[in-house]
Amino acid sequence: MPELRQNLATREWVIIATERAKRPHDYVQPRQHLLTEAQPPYDPTCPFCPGHEELDLEIERMPANGPWQTRVVENKFPALSPKGELVRTFDGVHRSIYGLGYHEILVEHPSHNTTLALMSTADIDFVLQTFYSRGWDITRDARIEQIIFFKNHGIQAGATLKHPHSQIVALPVVPNNIRYRIEEARRYFDDNGHCVYCVMMQDELEKGIRVIDTSQHFVAFALYASPSPFHVWIMPRQHSVSFLFARKEELADLAQILRRVLRRLYLGLRDPAYNLVIRTAPAKEIGEDYLHWYVTIIPRLNSTAGFELGSGMFINTALPEESAIFLREVEI
Amino acid sequence: MPELRQNLATREWVIIATERAKRPHDYVQPRQHLLTEAQPPYDPTCPFCPGHEELDLEIERMPANGPWQTRVVENKFPALSPKGELVRTFDGVHRSIYGLGYHEILVEHPSHNTTLALMSTADIDFVLQTFYSRGWDITRDARIEQIIFFKNHGIQAGATLKHPHSQIVALPVVPNNIRYRIEEARRYFDDNGHCVYCVMMQDELEKGIRVIDTSQHFVAFALYASPSPFHVWIMPRQHSVSFLFARKEELADLAQILRRVLRRLYLGLRDPAYNLVIRTAPAKEIGEDYLHWYVTIIPRLNSTAGFELGSGMFINTALPEESAIFLREVEI
Repeated sequence: MPELRQNLATREWVIIATERAKRPHDYVQPRQHLLTEAQPPYDPTCPFCPGHEELDLEIERMPANGPWQTRVVENKFPALSPKGELVRTFDGVHRSIYGLGYHEILVEHPSHNTTLALMSTADIDFVLQTFYSRGWDITRDARIEQIIFFKNHGIQAGATLKHPHSQIVALPVVPNNIRYRIEEARRYFDDNGHCVYCVMMQDELEKGIRVIDTSQHFVAFALYASPSPFHVWIMPRQHSVSFLFARKEELADLAQILRRVLRRLYLGLRDPAYNLVIRTAPAKEIGEDYLHWYVTIIPRLNSTAGFELGSGMFINTALPEESAIFLREVEI
Repeated sequence: MPELRQNLATREWVIIATERAKRPHDYVQPRQHLLTEAQPPYDPTCPFCPGHEELDLEIERMPANGPWQTRVVENKFPALSPKGELVRTFDGVHRSIYGLGYHEILVEHPSHNTTLALMSTADIDFVLQTFYSRGWDITRDARIEQIIFFKNHGIQAGATLKHPHSQIVALPVVPNNIRYRIEEARRYFDDNGHCVYCVMMQDELEKGIRVIDTSQHFVAFALYASPSPFHVWIMPRQHSVSFLFARKEELADLAQILRRVLRRLYLGLRDPAYNLVIRTAPAKEIGEDYLHWYVTIIPRLNSTAGFELGSGMFINTALPEESAIFLREVEI
């Protein structure tokens, strides 16, 4: 029986298309070889492999001395530039802002042929600490309104370089989509006196049917109104609006659960392409009481088409409850 | 110089990434053969080719008697079903509606190896009339709130069947994304006393730099804040909220300009994948004064990745003014 489900936080509807639904096993990728078998650990033409780092583009490395574990470099073809004045023009019809901002690459590991799912917890902790450190540095730039921390893994997810990396884009505006989420969360808080995300997470913990994994500080679950197959949220148990407010031990704990969830996807679905986003509060409009940061992982197993572009709604051909069971049962 | 531009109607920002911008010619698809050369005119395994129509799924055909020119059939694996009761449930956290609605395929032409860009104006007029006719029939179902008329052309645009076809999805809710657009358009109207879309179109006609084609009743232009390369809007010159209010001569005129614009894309970029959407008012919340229907064509020349998913914003690597010149100059 087809069903529309609404995301309580964003009020977005998704269609759970049971008539055209597939079983979880249908999403296993037809790969002959997994990553480490198919690629060399070092590629002499890769700009991110150790030995030929483009030092003029480097912004930060961890650790600061000795061989690096992670590096942040300027994107060679940035969508935005940190240099220049934040000039706004509006002639009544055309509104534009000079493309001020940051567009950085986070090189996640020295090895060319690894990925988060194959790294150690300590490696992933380094990646998260690097995000955190750059996030705070960029936040100090008063011209920045919103930072997007994200990762594209695999060609279908828009990755163009193989060396494991994430990206940071810092914007001089709060995107509309994020503003709408803020407004919806504020409305829920005004009506009910609670953070809507805390309510959703608490419900998932009580029901248990969509929980994929848990750790001391985080809960990973398949969203009730998942817009796409195997869509995962990893949410801090304690109410907090921003990734940049996470404590050191929370980051270390997130590294653990993130590694486990990504291994469930990697081993269970044979390395699907995915996008990962840290959804966090704007730099200034913090929304202390009603926003709640989290990590979302969006495997790219379906393509979006005219319906999604025309409606903004998604058709999900996987039942979130089945996806959760499948991922929970993967031996990691 | 990178630039953020805002869509006056939706207030959505896009990044025009001049540093990573490509020239229009870089988007020409590397196809050896165009469609008619690469495919047979008739495929005995195709469920849409004449001779083995699945008559039990047929909803409408045009003309009603004699050999058909267009047909509307139920989707064999529909995302929504017109049968059943519109039951809503809400337990405080989970809101769901029975997946009531319509999901139909519009077979655009008897030939297997054609596409709108290669059809005659009369053929395309049949397609538009079929959309119109089904649109009115579905609108009479009081349970329907919004109809999405769309087309997926090519694999990158999500098309899974080769026979030329469009789709109609009718929903029991107004999607959030459409509600936000309505609210923004209403706010503009309240502040300024005009339809924002009329203002944008008038400006494009005056400036001319982003106009791609014009006809008696329509204007085709590259949007100032185009979210992706070669994004085109075809808008009725006369203010009107709904495709379903178009007059017969307007549909015939739309067939002409739509054909010309699609030929510019097909011949200029060598048959790029694209999505086409008719953006039209909800079935009940008409928004008479401030909404304006139009056709949007979205070539799928870039992939969306974590940044777009995380921000809802787009990075466009083509300058709309250059795209407009390129398309204007294609010999059709």
